Amino acid sequence: MSSASRYTYLGPEGTFTEAALHTLPEAATRQLTPMVSVPAALDPVRNGEAQAAFVPIENSVEGGVTATLDELRGGSRLMIYREVLLPIAFALLVRPGTPLAEVKTVTGHPVAQPQVRNWLAAHLPDAVWESAASNADGARLVQEGRYDAAFAGEFAAATYGLEPLVTDIHDAENATTRFVLLGPPGRPAAPTGADKTSVVFWLRGDQPGALLEVLHEYASRGVNMMRIESRPTGEGIGQYCFQIDSEGHVQDRRVGDVLMGLRRSCRAVRFLGSYPRADRQPPTLRSGTADEDFVAAADWLSRCLDGRD
Amino acid sequence: MSSASRYTYLGPEGTFTEAALHTLPEAATRQLTPMVSVPAALDPVRNGEAQAAFVPIENSVEGGVTATLDELRGGSRLMIYREVLLPIAFALLVRPGTPLAEVKTVTGHPVAQPQVRNWLAAHLPDAVWESAASNADGARLVQEGRYDAAFAGEFAAATYGLEPLVTDIHDAENATTRFVLLGPPGRPAAPTGADKTSVVFWLRGDQPGALLEVLHEYASRGVNMMRIESRPTGEGIGQYCFQIDSEGHVQDRRVGDVLMGLRRSCRAVRFLGSYPRADRQPPTLRSGTADEDFVAAADWLSRCLDGRD
Amino acid sequence: MSSASRYTYLGPEGTFTEAALHTLPEAATRQLTPMVSVPAALDPVRNGEAQAAFVPIENSVEGGVTATLDELRGGSRLMIYREVLLPIAFALLVRPGTPLAEVKTVTGHPVAQPQVRNWLAAHLPDAVWESAASNADGARLVQEGRYDAAFAGEFAAATYGLEPLVTDIHDAENATTRFVLLGPPGRPAAPTGADKTSVVFWLRGDQPGALLEVLHEYASRGVNMMRIESRPTGEGIGQYCFQIDSEGHVQDRRVGDVLMGLRRSCRAVRFLGSYPRADRQPPTLRSGTADEDFVAAADWLSRCLDGRD
Amino acid sequence: MSSASRYTYLGPEGTFTEAALHTLPEAATRQLTPMVSVPAALDPVRNGEAQAAFVPIENSVEGGVTATLDELRGGSRLMIYREVLLPIAFALLVRPGTPLAEVKTVTGHPVAQPQVRNWLAAHLPDAVWESAASNADGARLVQEGRYDAAFAGEFAAATYGLEPLVTDIHDAENATTRFVLLGPPGRPAAPTGADKTSVVFWLRGDQPGALLEVLHEYASRGVNMMRIESRPTGEGIGQYCFQIDSEGHVQDRRVGDVLMGLRRSCRAVRFLGSYPRADRQPPTLRSGTADEDFVAAADWLSRCLDGRD
Repeated sequence: MSSASRYTYLGPEGTFTEAALHTLPEAATRQLTPMVSVPAALDPVRNGEAQAAFVPIENSVEGGVTATLDELRGGSRLMIYREVLLPIAFALLVRPGTPLAEVKTVTGHPVAQPQVRNWLAAHLPDAVWESAASNADGARLVQEGRYDAAFAGEFAAATYGLEPLVTDIHDAENATTRFVLLGPPGRPAAPTGADKTSVVFWLRGDQPGALLEVLHEYASRGVNMMRIESRPTGEGIGQYCFQIDSEGHVQDRRVGDVLMGLRRSCRAVRFLGSYPRADRQPPTLRSGTADEDFVAAADWLSRCLDGRD
Repeated sequence: MSSASRYTYLGPEGTFTEAALHTLPEAATRQLTPMVSVPAALDPVRNGEAQAAFVPIENSVEGGVTATLDELRGGSRLMIYREVLLPIAFALLVRPGTPLAEVKTVTGHPVAQPQVRNWLAAHLPDAVWESAASNADGARLVQEGRYDAAFAGEFAAATYGLEPLVTDIHDAENATTRFVLLGPPGRPAAPTGADKTSVVFWLRGDQPGALLEVLHEYASRGVNMMRIESRPTGEGIGQYCFQIDSEGHVQDRRVGDVLMGLRRSCRAVRFLGSYPRADRQPPTLRSGTADEDFVAAADWLSRCLDGRD
Repeated sequence: MSSASRYTYLGPEGTFTEAALHTLPEAATRQLTPMVSVPAALDPVRNGEAQAAFVPIENSVEGGVTATLDELRGGSRLMIYREVLLPIAFALLVRPGTPLAEVKTVTGHPVAQPQVRNWLAAHLPDAVWESAASNADGARLVQEGRYDAAFAGEFAAATYGLEPLVTDIHDAENATTRFVLLGPPGRPAAPTGADKTSVVFWLRGDQPGALLEVLHEYASRGVNMMRIESRPTGEGIGQYCFQIDSEGHVQDRRVGDVLMGLRRSCRAVRFLGSYPRADRQPPTLRSGTADEDFVAAADWLSRCLDGRD
Repeated sequence: MSSASRYTYLGPEGTFTEAALHTLPEAATRQLTPMVSVPAALDPVRNGEAQAAFVPIENSVEGGVTATLDELRGGSRLMIYREVLLPIAFALLVRPGTPLAEVKTVTGHPVAQPQVRNWLAAHLPDAVWESAASNADGARLVQEGRYDAAFAGEFAAATYGLEPLVTDIHDAENATTRFVLLGPPGRPAAPTGADKTSVVFWLRGDQPGALLEVLHEYASRGVNMMRIESRPTGEGIGQYCFQIDSEGHVQDRRVGDVLMGLRRSCRAVRFLGSYPRADRQPPTLRSGTADEDFVAAADWLSRCLDGRD
């Protein structure tokens, strides 16, 4: 099977990531290979051994997935081609027949812990929590008898011969994880009218107000920021780069104009792609920022240059 | 003589305007026609009966010359092709033989009055001031015996058979008037590396912060404003348009980018020309705003669009 | 009669200024003295010989009245205590019996000319215009037979034995002049809920973006600017100070906060008063900018300082 | 022993956190209790059973420590009273006598993994990594024979009967972790002239540009931001709060003014304390932002209100 038909993903099997990946129509026609970590999932993409990798990037409870964010800013450039939003609800998986009263030890991915903390305090106040490498791995450890129960997706129960004792557990309303499909640099997905554009940029030296200037590049073209994440550059405490997701597609003139402004005013900027919004919400355009306004302004400028008007 | 060889100017003869006009090399080869007012000087340009008009636009003591500013924002569009700065110092012109002690009445253009007010208070505290239609007209009225003395340029003495009793009178240090050569819309003067660009614009409706947004268009491209003047639109108290002179030439990418931003964010914008700065001071470019930075940013964007980088 | 009961105003009698002054209730109980110029009207106030002076400050057609603006920024500080808006419409005053066809020469204040220019072009295209020192002075010159007609307020006809041949002449719809009552520094008028606050300020040296910073002081507290006027400082071309009228009263916390910001960020700032808006329109407060929001924020800060919250 | 003399910290013993804690002079006189997680370390502080907790908050390679950040924004308010910076270098700990060639499995805290990734690729390309709950826990697991080697601080070797096979391992130059001492709300530490102030705030609803407005509150008072971190509010994807560390102390007028601005313009703001900067670098004050400038501005405003100046 050629690399063109292979997707890697953050494994193991039986996690929310795999469940999210299956919502992509093309997943049915790809070889799907679970990997042990985000870097491990991305290396084959960078080496040409896989077409794309599917990994979590952001969780509405835990925030950015730093492994993914850091792979996007470092190493060879990757681009985002798709995003998927998956509501997150946990099931408490036990070996068949285990009653709640006998659950003394519970496990799960560290990211799951804050999302079930209140539920644990209310229903299993004396249970001891230990982290597992993944939710699926936690399920496996329950299967092996190492823990009494694991928090995981209900869909993981069958794989590990467990049963869901309690379902739909989530401390926060609307807990959602965002996943992205990452591939090598290429032409962005075609605009759909409800798109998102992601970049990571490094501010110039010690320039005070440099971040303010970048945000103005967005604000002055009416391009709404949807997410801003600061990340250390690895050059020492207090050195940050920023990743911004905004509405719009790089083919939209207002977005392209923002990107050119960033390119000029920042030390460096990396284009991470334009791709359809999972929530399909179209943007609200501010007056003077539609493509035709940019075209009209460029036409007018060229008339000024030529001495017409 | 054809219209192409005729310049009008704000007359009458013998004023500072005429003196400034003669500093333009091409003035020697043009028919120079004094007119009674700024509108009267501009009408022949608009009608094709004169090539250009030379009028004052700003005085370092009195501020903007409203007649000129209002002609630039109203009527058919005109453009600025040249500017001239002339230091202003007055002479007190009298009929030959008049001693200072006998000067009881003085005249001059209303604009001259605040520039000689302190001198008058110190040397002729009892003299009565009456305004004349122009400094030259004041000289003529002295010639006719209607007033004892006139404030005017020393160069006006000969024309009216007067003598300069006192020279180099000016309350303010560095009193200077700026004049402009206005013509019909055409290709701007070639960039010299030390240029100025003028626009007038009308903000959108009641948008609060709209002026702030326009100033950001300049600031974000490091284009320094040299003058901002608010003018009523004539649509009622509280309705303004603004005229801004900035450094740079419309052919400079950073300036063109500002103008396109104005075109998009304002209700209307009128390009008034790019022309050599009279003071020949080149701009200080901020990092990321040189033409090559704009070109590099546009190249990069097109690589992003194509899937290269 | 003591100085406390005397108001000066820009004369002569029979002008729009006098008409506007009579709209102030207290005018009926004051001695009203016309003066030949704005400076002449203000000197007695500065010397303690008059309580206040009533002068025009802005015209919806012509813009700021520079004599008044310059007196506000120079000399000893004066404050604005009242404003009056007067719609401006001219009458064409002639000696009784003069038909329109016989009007060959017309006069009026230079400020009147652009406001009747279109009317003149339509109805008296061949009439010659000459400026007079004031509209009332123009009427007097018609009385003396020097001109055929004068543009002035209809109310001036009786004073000079003339008749209004045409009335309600004004090129622009809504032509309005704003007048102010200026007095020596003192406690501002009490807040009415619909007030205005005026300042003049000088930016720091060559700081680029300094004007932007000042406008942000207003914008960040949601204080709407109603007028911004740039004026030369008299220190040379390109040196400006700015006068801003904003909504709100200095006793409003958001306005006081803006003023303190200006005081800190500008080279100099002069408080020109808070006074009732002539149009009585109350401001629309932005969320977080009411007095109680400022009080709550100060209380919270003091709890933070004390270690409570 | 009373709660007043007890500090909790993120354990177990033998981690970098414990090493950093010992750099605080008062640590010598406190009972130091290791806890299994950040929440576990903070609960006793919130319950009054411990005086303070010492936890990592930021790593120059990994970024913010989300458990700590999330505890600061949620639950009852805590305040930062001290910060400590500790350079991070790992040792590879093995059972005495193990040669590098026999190391097939390695462990360590997940946060350690990206910091030793390059070293591993270069020196132990075939070794399998598995995460441990902490670096110290990894050392224990090596002691128990479960893994061949653990990455941990060199100081942990003795505790677990291991020997440091390789020392000073760190992929990034200047890898540093920042730790904070958290206590219940109280009076902030006294200003030292080189301080830091931390806040977390929630923007108002859907207001576009709301983050820009907050950054302006800092920029307009010349208060330099040192770190900005976006965190999900837990209310759904795209809902963020922000934590900002800036230079300055809440007792500095410019900082207090910023905080009041945040309080007014944000939906909510939580003051997290002012404390000495670990790097002891004093701020560079911008013109007009010193305490005396704020005092002078307040004095001037009160003179304006009183009618003096």
